Amino acid sequence: MNNFIFENGTKTYFGKGCVREYLTCLSRHYGQTVMLAYGGGSIKRNGVYDEVMACLQKAGQKVIEFSGIGANPTYAKVLEGAKAARENKVDLILGVGGGSVMDCCKAISMAAVYDGDIWKDFWARPGVIDFEPLPLGVIVTVAGTGSEMNGGAVITNEELKIKTGRDYPKCNAKFALMDPTYTYSVPKEQMVSGGFDILSHIMETYFSEPDEGNVSDDISEALMRGVIRDLRAAIRDPQDYTARSNLMWESAMAENRIIKLGKRMDFECHQMEHQLGAYTNCNHGAGLAVLHPVYYRHIYKDGLAKFERFAVNVWGISPEGKSSEALAREGVEELAKFIREIGLPATLRELGVDETTDLKAIADSCNLASGGYRKMTHEEILKIFRECY
Amino acid sequence: MNNFIFENGTKTYFGKGCVREYLTCLSRHYGQTVMLAYGGGSIKRNGVYDEVMACLQKAGQKVIEFSGIGANPTYAKVLEGAKAARENKVDLILGVGGGSVMDCCKAISMAAVYDGDIWKDFWARPGVIDFEPLPLGVIVTVAGTGSEMNGGAVITNEELKIKTGRDYPKCNAKFALMDPTYTYSVPKEQMVSGGFDILSHIMETYFSEPDEGNVSDDISEALMRGVIRDLRAAIRDPQDYTARSNLMWESAMAENRIIKLGKRMDFECHQMEHQLGAYTNCNHGAGLAVLHPVYYRHIYKDGLAKFERFAVNVWGISPEGKSSEALAREGVEELAKFIREIGLPATLRELGVDETTDLKAIADSCNLASGGYRKMTHEEILKIFRECY
Repeated sequence: MNNFIFENGTKTYFGKGCVREYLTCLSRHYGQTVMLAYGGGSIKRNGVYDEVMACLQKAGQKVIEFSGIGANPTYAKVLEGAKAARENKVDLILGVGGGSVMDCCKAISMAAVYDGDIWKDFWARPGVIDFEPLPLGVIVTVAGTGSEMNGGAVITNEELKIKTGRDYPKCNAKFALMDPTYTYSVPKEQMVSGGFDILSHIMETYFSEPDEGNVSDDISEALMRGVIRDLRAAIRDPQDYTARSNLMWESAMAENRIIKLGKRMDFECHQMEHQLGAYTNCNHGAGLAVLHPVYYRHIYKDGLAKFERFAVNVWGISPEGKSSEALAREGVEELAKFIREIGLPATLRELGVDETTDLKAIADSCNLASGGYRKMTHEEILKIFRECY
Repeated sequence: MNNFIFENGTKTYFGKGCVREYLTCLSRHYGQTVMLAYGGGSIKRNGVYDEVMACLQKAGQKVIEFSGIGANPTYAKVLEGAKAARENKVDLILGVGGGSVMDCCKAISMAAVYDGDIWKDFWARPGVIDFEPLPLGVIVTVAGTGSEMNGGAVITNEELKIKTGRDYPKCNAKFALMDPTYTYSVPKEQMVSGGFDILSHIMETYFSEPDEGNVSDDISEALMRGVIRDLRAAIRDPQDYTARSNLMWESAMAENRIIKLGKRMDFECHQMEHQLGAYTNCNHGAGLAVLHPVYYRHIYKDGLAKFERFAVNVWGISPEGKSSEALAREGVEELAKFIREIGLPATLRELGVDETTDLKAIADSCNLASGGYRKMTHEEILKIFRECY
């Protein structure tokens, strides 16, 4: 294991009925005014909104509603939320939704108490948070981003066309409520893209140094096998509680920092997808599904031993009689097959990216770190984008 | 996944040099008086004591020493430590050692500020801690109990001949410093008994409901394979940093609550061993090594499917052409073989338990929960003890 520091301040309440059981008491702890933040209103159709409101009313909370947080939440939306939180002297922000809502709420929790420009000071570059953000609680309705147990928030600055993520431990939600039955009504398309986002988080961590046997990689392999198993089961039966609850917890485990300990990581594919999203507003998980196999065909020779392990330990491919390269490549192709099996797009065209899209501009806008097996050049990223089309 | 609540308040600093890098600053945060608690003095021989003292002196701390915490720490020792902490108005307890030291320090952190009898109110039966224990930091020198990242403390009441453990989140250390090189000088015998303690923590969690595929069991299997791999490597080369650091982190992961989420558990073997320890003061990990295979031969038919998974997924045994029972039993025998391979005792006699020991009294003193595959009777426990002799 390489050196690391670990902390996780989010208290997590997991399971059927947890919102009804704990939200009233939890909300009282922070004061009397809650800002209830959510997205496009699906929570009003599936009953989650009513359940949450009943708990808050029971707690005697004054509720300020802040809705309309869309996919790829924007800096403008963050500022709008912060203004509402300040004006209403909010004691607790309660984000109900998936990653977009949770990420937006984390940025709001900072902007609501910070006098400067949070984009400039904390997203454009990493900063040091020497103040206490507004307390945040989250209620998860989609398994995917794993934003519920970390301080990470991916925000899109529309003006600058930059989508970027930072993880500040101070931004961890104080509490997370995770009821797997809340995800029953998520449409299949969104469920599989969320599921692939989980798998992608684990792969982006796994495919980086160190490569010698280490606890983080061991756990990552177990989680990847689990996500594949549970995604297949949830497609067969969307109300399979075991599969849905496993996916919800795998989502959190992929991003609660445990599997990242001692790993270099770089999240190259995520960074490429972020820029693709900033330019085309495509679906995050589906964008990742298009990029991953093509990207791995480019880099697997640079991390050959790890890609061999991936083939054997994650996909159960027998290594017998195969060259290292053939085995490694077989693992990548098995991943590509799985992506098609669960109904995700395999090309940018299928993803709905327009022919006239300036792929070169997107490639040039990618600002990649160097934690992966090989640092990508803008030329190679463009090549990958073109192969994806 | 079954319902659960998760929290972990310990901030963990892991890796070579972490004490030198962080202890000075960490200790300053809590005040000016530190109680430095440790065991028999091995830290004075291996240089750890000097390194810790240098950091505390640099921080300008007044250091109160509290040494002589032995294996199976007693309630009497806890009260002695609490008295010293009160008299010296200690701001931070710093426990340097293995599980015995850390457990004793957790109990001291409560007794130092609680006016009643902590044994009666929190160990004899579970209690609710509605006060703040004294802040505690720990520096780990042996991988085994995993006490560094939970609020658990196993204390022996010598008068009552009861050894029992409780886990209170409020007793989690505020910080844990884990430098794997500190374990280089641990004698082989103690290293393997600590290693088996880790494996036992995972097995006692794994062999309980639910048995359907779930994230906690997936991670447990990955950790068990890791412990087996790393223990073998550390025996071959005690200064293998990869193996030692993996073992140190596996020890924490086995007990930081992650793998227990949604699991019933009962720690039956641990409870039997605790009473064996209370009567004979035997080594904890070695005692567990003697008990486990015999106990599993008694119960494997009650949890057949899980024992089959154990054989295949942990020991890599091929299931082909084998009956469920034969496969499950092969896994248990592979465990027994591994225990002999790493040099742990296989019988109570080898463990040094005297012939005249009243095994019936020990069996009758066991107070077992019912989370396992079958609730043991005192008669069956006595049978197990006799088969172990």
